[in-house]
Amino acid sequence: MRNFKLTLEYDGSGFKGWQSQSQGERTVQDELERVLFQIFKVRVVAIASGRTDSGVHALGQVVSFKAETKMKSVEILRALRALLPTDMMALDVKEVDLDFHAQYNVKSKTYRYTILNRPYSSAFQRNHCHFFPHPLNLTRMREEAKFFVGKKDFKSFEATDLSRPKHTTVRTIKKMVILKKGHWITIDIQADGFLYKMVRNIVGTLLEAGRGRLAKGEVKRIIQKKDRTKAGETAVPQGLCLMEVKY
Amino acid sequence: MRNFKLTLEYDGSGFKGWQSQSQGERTVQDELERVLFQIFKVRVVAIASGRTDSGVHALGQVVSFKAETKMKSVEILRALRALLPTDMMALDVKEVDLDFHAQYNVKSKTYRYTILNRPYSSAFQRNHCHFFPHPLNLTRMREEAKFFVGKKDFKSFEATDLSRPKHTTVRTIKKMVILKKGHWITIDIQADGFLYKMVRNIVGTLLEAGRGRLAKGEVKRIIQKKDRTKAGETAVPQGLCLMEVKY
Repeated sequence: MRNFKLTLEYDGSGFKGWQSQSQGERTVQDELERVLFQIFKVRVVAIASGRTDSGVHALGQVVSFKAETKMKSVEILRALRALLPTDMMALDVKEVDLDFHAQYNVKSKTYRYTILNRPYSSAFQRNHCHFFPHPLNLTRMREEAKFFVGKKDFKSFEATDLSRPKHTTVRTIKKMVILKKGHWITIDIQADGFLYKMVRNIVGTLLEAGRGRLAKGEVKRIIQKKDRTKAGETAVPQGLCLMEVKY
Repeated sequence: MRNFKLTLEYDGSGFKGWQSQSQGERTVQDELERVLFQIFKVRVVAIASGRTDSGVHALGQVVSFKAETKMKSVEILRALRALLPTDMMALDVKEVDLDFHAQYNVKSKTYRYTILNRPYSSAFQRNHCHFFPHPLNLTRMREEAKFFVGKKDFKSFEATDLSRPKHTTVRTIKKMVILKKGHWITIDIQADGFLYKMVRNIVGTLLEAGRGRLAKGEVKRIIQKKDRTKAGETAVPQGLCLMEVKY
């Protein structure tokens, strides 16, 4: 048996997220495993660094899978490029140690959230950004963003609509960068891991700050309260993109 | 009666081009006229600077239409933004003289053709570029591009698949700029007008030059021959975008 690490790009617009679903909706995992079956003639399980939600994109999702094969990595890469649907693209395939696991071995992940901030949307980029027509105060967003950085309990920013077994809600955000170029605002967040919908809940809260609806230091207080109802709304999925996973 | 000039953006992926078709296919003109009818409660004819083909995009298409209305331009703009489908966007509406005609009064148009030049496509940009995996020699492309600039008979670059009444095939290309940024190549062409599929036939010919399949000065000879069969293949529509129309 051999183990492979695949770097994957996908346009989330046409998918009900990464994970296979019982209802037979189109998912990234299903499409990938269908193609892996075509290549290896046996069922191969694809393990992602983490799930992405319906509509969320990836420019650098990492997937590991094990296969009994004599193919070189570059041959697998070529086969994937030929067989994957056009809204998925295999960027790289490398052979890795048998104990490499795309989910468990993650050291950090970087997500980018893209906002189009002007009075009207974009026909071209409509599926790749959050169109936000109200003026935003970048200074206020950056002031509040600082409170997210560091090792914290992010319970206030975890989605409540997913029942999960007891688990820690402590994560470490290593870096947060908010940039503006023309009408485009990007929020890059690097962390050792993210809770379910954490990035989109953080962005929703920063948008509140940008609109002047949050008192100074409010993010610090919201984090302390460990209560999801205190934070902002979940920002729309199409603005979110998984950029890079480090191991 | 009043006359309006509308600047329009659209993602061509979901349209069978600009022009209304008898077969009931989805076109930009039909969608726009449907919305104009909603706004003005009477049938309003939309005249574009020129047709764009199926799959071709626009960031600056210009449309004129006449309407009996008391609405301000900005109110029409707002109504269009609210009612147009998400793959169309009204950028601007201005009232103009009654004799302004979006097609007949064109002074120049600028098209951009976008090429992704690397061994693999992009899931994100697949509908907004021509994926071209073979290495391209930019110097050769620029050398041949020079022969297109000026007032010439472009008969060799007019599509043969459209029967049209006798007309002049002389056009003036004012400017041609080929740029490369990373794996992306853009070809900007500004002219006083374009023949049917002229930009895509020019690009197809330049791609031949870039692959080293065209002798030096061959474009000059192809133009002189006035024979469509001498030029390169028509490049795919999704790489093409109408950027700007001047009056």
